[in-house]
Amino acid sequence: MIDVNDLTKIPTDCSLTEFVGTTVLDTIGLVIPGIDSSLLEQMNLKKPYKSLGLISSRTGAAGQINAVDEAVKSTNTEVVSIELPRDTKGWGGHGCFIILGGENVSDVRRAVEISLEYIEKYAGELYISQAGHLEFTYSACADLALNIAFDAPVGRPFGFFCGSPAAIGLVMADLAVKASPVEIIRYMTPDKGTSHSNEVIVAVTGDASAVKDAVLTARETGLRLLVSMGSFPETPSKPFL
Amino acid sequence: MIDVNDLTKIPTDCSLTEFVGTTVLDTIGLVIPGIDSSLLEQMNLKKPYKSLGLISSRTGAAGQINAVDEAVKSTNTEVVSIELPRDTKGWGGHGCFIILGGENVSDVRRAVEISLEYIEKYAGELYISQAGHLEFTYSACADLALNIAFDAPVGRPFGFFCGSPAAIGLVMADLAVKASPVEIIRYMTPDKGTSHSNEVIVAVTGDASAVKDAVLTARETGLRLLVSMGSFPETPSKPFL
Amino acid sequence: MIDVNDLTKIPTDCSLTEFVGTTVLDTIGLVIPGIDSSLLEQMNLKKPYKSLGLISSRTGAAGQINAVDEAVKSTNTEVVSIELPRDTKGWGGHGCFIILGGENVSDVRRAVEISLEYIEKYAGELYISQAGHLEFTYSACADLALNIAFDAPVGRPFGFFCGSPAAIGLVMADLAVKASPVEIIRYMTPDKGTSHSNEVIVAVTGDASAVKDAVLTARETGLRLLVSMGSFPETPSKPFL
Repeated sequence: MIDVNDLTKIPTDCSLTEFVGTTVLDTIGLVIPGIDSSLLEQMNLKKPYKSLGLISSRTGAAGQINAVDEAVKSTNTEVVSIELPRDTKGWGGHGCFIILGGENVSDVRRAVEISLEYIEKYAGELYISQAGHLEFTYSACADLALNIAFDAPVGRPFGFFCGSPAAIGLVMADLAVKASPVEIIRYMTPDKGTSHSNEVIVAVTGDASAVKDAVLTARETGLRLLVSMGSFPETPSKPFL
Repeated sequence: MIDVNDLTKIPTDCSLTEFVGTTVLDTIGLVIPGIDSSLLEQMNLKKPYKSLGLISSRTGAAGQINAVDEAVKSTNTEVVSIELPRDTKGWGGHGCFIILGGENVSDVRRAVEISLEYIEKYAGELYISQAGHLEFTYSACADLALNIAFDAPVGRPFGFFCGSPAAIGLVMADLAVKASPVEIIRYMTPDKGTSHSNEVIVAVTGDASAVKDAVLTARETGLRLLVSMGSFPETPSKPFL
Repeated sequence: MIDVNDLTKIPTDCSLTEFVGTTVLDTIGLVIPGIDSSLLEQMNLKKPYKSLGLISSRTGAAGQINAVDEAVKSTNTEVVSIELPRDTKGWGGHGCFIILGGENVSDVRRAVEISLEYIEKYAGELYISQAGHLEFTYSACADLALNIAFDAPVGRPFGFFCGSPAAIGLVMADLAVKASPVEIIRYMTPDKGTSHSNEVIVAVTGDASAVKDAVLTARETGLRLLVSMGSFPETPSKPFL
């Protein structure tokens, strides 16, 4: 038992069987091998899997959802729910809370492990300055996580750009969709589709090269505007697009 | 009159009759002896008391609601409303804004004083690390504050556990309800019942010892998982469960 | 092209034609000379102007809305939308995202420039301490920005007071409306009219001197209560009321 009067004695190396791992952006990956039936009933899941995988971050959403998209592609698991809390540790965006389901716990655990690996990579396209943040993601072939979260057509290229403060996101989107022949599939603002975050978010589909170009134009624009606000952004990982 | 060009000359020892006191978690307790009738009309309270007591915190909700529950038990006052802003000063949870009502101002003032005392105590079960936070509360005999906020059956034991990032809250709840024969009365997530906080919250009832055991199991689990994220939590008061 | 592997090389002096300027409260002013038609369709604006002006801040709303009110009065532009994200960089309030529209881009650019000038001035009535914040604004003659955001009667005096934690805002409002014969036009709380911010907000109209007196009474009250919480507030600009 933990001694709550000496919290620094709690082991940092977690031995709970539910623990899978942690990564950047205050992300934790967990599994529930066989969820309690009374709790499962309250959760009111569309598909009441007994084995659940959980991805939960304080900061970021699109990168994590794209990471989970990769994980469900390559494992026998499914996305059960995606929720976007208003978080980012004091910044103007979202965190995420994603539930995966599967028939057996080893599949689910593997999906969470894969998600954590991709989250570290995809976090490279999250840029955070003292003034605001930018998030980008790209998938050559969207699967069900991106479909559930952003109506991405399954099997098609997917691009995502998000800027905060919100006006930066709108100018990014305008220049991106002017520069490339893409189709807008989602438009989100503080009052529309977000959890009142200070962001404009646009998601697009189209031919792979057009979608990727749109994302790169949005990134170029967003970085220039964000830096105009007086501080340089950093990324928790390494840019890869 | 205050000189707004020298804000540091404002007395820290507040002499307004409305002021009752402050405590941990950026909490202020206030009374409005006879609220303005045009303001009362706009407030659209269920019970239009003229004497109002106010409890308002930047961080925490369950401990404050439990504290107010104690206050209304022992004074001639009633809970008028409980609101949960998305706050916690940059963390992923709630603050609170609670209005009490009574027929006379001394009753209401006493209720606010009692609330402030219990808030300091109950804050001992709020644990905050660099990565996230956990909140627990327990009542042997719930009254109307806990009933209004969480559907707690009046007169029955009540247990509450909350974890952030959200996935920690779900694993805490799963192990807690498996370990003890309790009944789940509320299940809250970023999209369900919260103000888009990054939390899973579960409230339970049952026999006193089962409810308390469930809270302790949740606490043990939550602390282990929170520490796995790389930093030790602190509490603004002293653990007491 | 920006080198994303050396973000500190991005010019701080932004050369994009969309850039207008920045000011206090992490505010950026931008224009979109001719918005992309597919994006315009997604935005679903009430009035689909092709030239848009954008005002976007991490912190503050009433001062910015009042500033935009001045800008639309003196330019051939109109307010298209006002959204209040839950932001304030870790504090308990809002940021803002305001869209202006006009028939030609020079009008819109001028409106954004005027807005930025007034935002710097009006930010002088935003007070932020370690515990919470207060915001005040006053207009002798409200126009459509204040009307859209707070139902201010056009052409009439307008006063606004906001306190966080929320209870401070309610006591400020009670004393302000008792002290001056004003009419309450908006009452907002964490659950009512806000994006779950930790604020009580009251907007009033009436005779100019009564409205201004109400704002000053609210300010006097709010500053005393905020300081009682243990730290002195600062303002990003200079008090002017």
